[in-house]
Amino acid sequence: MPGPTTAQVLLKALGTTVLVKLKGGREVRGVLRSFDQHLNLVLDEAEEVKSNKTRKLGTIIVRGDNVVLVSPTT
Amino acid sequence: MPGPTTAQVLLKALGTTVLVKLKGGREVRGVLRSFDQHLNLVLDEAEEVKSNKTRKLGTIIVRGDNVVLVSPTT
Amino acid sequence: MPGPTTAQVLLKALGTTVLVKLKGGREVRGVLRSFDQHLNLVLDEAEEVKSNKTRKLGTIIVRGDNVVLVSPTT
Amino acid sequence: MPGPTTAQVLLKALGTTVLVKLKGGREVRGVLRSFDQHLNLVLDEAEEVKSNKTRKLGTIIVRGDNVVLVSPTT
Amino acid sequence: MPGPTTAQVLLKALGTTVLVKLKGGREVRGVLRSFDQHLNLVLDEAEEVKSNKTRKLGTIIVRGDNVVLVSPTT
Amino acid sequence: MPGPTTAQVLLKALGTTVLVKLKGGREVRGVLRSFDQHLNLVLDEAEEVKSNKTRKLGTIIVRGDNVVLVSPTT
Amino acid sequence: MPGPTTAQVLLKALGTTVLVKLKGGREVRGVLRSFDQHLNLVLDEAEEVKSNKTRKLGTIIVRGDNVVLVSPTT
Repeated sequence: MPGPTTAQVLLKALGTTVLVKLKGGREVRGVLRSFDQHLNLVLDEAEEVKSNKTRKLGTIIVRGDNVVLVSPTT
Repeated sequence: MPGPTTAQVLLKALGTTVLVKLKGGREVRGVLRSFDQHLNLVLDEAEEVKSNKTRKLGTIIVRGDNVVLVSPTT
Repeated sequence: MPGPTTAQVLLKALGTTVLVKLKGGREVRGVLRSFDQHLNLVLDEAEEVKSNKTRKLGTIIVRGDNVVLVSPTT
Repeated sequence: MPGPTTAQVLLKALGTTVLVKLKGGREVRGVLRSFDQHLNLVLDEAEEVKSNKTRKLGTIIVRGDNVVLVSPTT
Repeated sequence: MPGPTTAQVLLKALGTTVLVKLKGGREVRGVLRSFDQHLNLVLDEAEEVKSNKTRKLGTIIVRGDNVVLVSPTT
Repeated sequence: MPGPTTAQVLLKALGTTVLVKLKGGREVRGVLRSFDQHLNLVLDEAEEVKSNKTRKLGTIIVRGDNVVLVSPTT
Repeated sequence: MPGPTTAQVLLKALGTTVLVKLKGGREVRGVLRSFDQHLNLVLDEAEEVKSNKTRKLGTIIVRGDNVVLVSPTT
């Protein structure tokens, strides 16, 4: 029996913190507020994580075609 | 309840300063004047930020497919 | 006589552990829960494998256009 | 109130010098003669700028999908 | 007189071992089981070849847009 | 008044030598024989230019999506 | 008077040896057997050329979107 689709996993993750790995090795983390079919994301309280340092970014829009993977952290 | 879409976040940011991270590590900052569905952006009073140095660019057009993320700074 | 298609191989792998090689050299492993025609994947109990170290990621969504190859491990 | 679109900024810049940043770090400068919806550009009196050296190129066609940003310099 | 098309070469190679060169320098080898018009491939008894070392991967799906070239080895 | 379009510049350059900069830093030079809307080019008497050395290539076809810029040299 | 199109150059090169430069610096050489509008190529008696060493590959399929340029060698 197939499991949840990409959209179902993201729907369930709305309002929770997700880890997003981007092309080129960047990583951001934030509360998922919305997404679309291109995997464009809106994150709140976002922060960039780079070699154990974090930089607060507030609300961000992530362009879907840079996303490598999304991981709900809860 | 889902949050604002990408377009709604950008609409709200019109006239305010946004930080834009580009592919290849470049970063620009400027006042968002307009955007379209490809995430093409027009920024005023833009400046490029590179290793703590800034370079004033004035009005710029950013091609959407180079955008990694957009962060309204207010 | 041609063998199974990409979709047939993935269908058969649902519920089992797959190894996914991503662009840029990243590798993740996890239980395949779903996939679509773009090779977007949902993996459970996923972990990233980097130079013999693993990092647990839980459930993840992998964007299809970063996938280089998928290997069912059973 | 939204500002000028990408096309409006370019229309206004016709006949003036623009700075164009390209993927891979290249930069060219020249008088904007025409553009299309793909951001293909025709520049006159163009020159490439690389680490403070310039190389005269005359009239050039820039392929839009290499453009990172365009900055009217006036 | 033109020779065989891409599809004809692959059809003839079904069931035989092919060498596949991927973007980024990776190389895999395996028995071709199926392919589609995007050059997505299913390989059996696949192994990755890296600087004279091989790693057995079993059955794999190769995403077509990472393929640089395919070489039937017989 | 807008200037010549990309196609008009290339039409005028038919039969003359053009410099073509390619992605990844490659440069070729040759007599432009034809082009299409994707910026695929046919060049005669082409030569590759790499760090002040040239290599004669004869007639070549350049795939448009590797073209960064085209510069008629006359 | 415009010269031959890309397709005409390739048609004329069928059955002769062509040099193909690929993205990432790879180079292959072989007898052109067929091509399509995406510049997918079938080469016979192909060999990869890397820093003056060659490796025989036999018949190969080259995926068009990796092709930078094609040069008929006769």
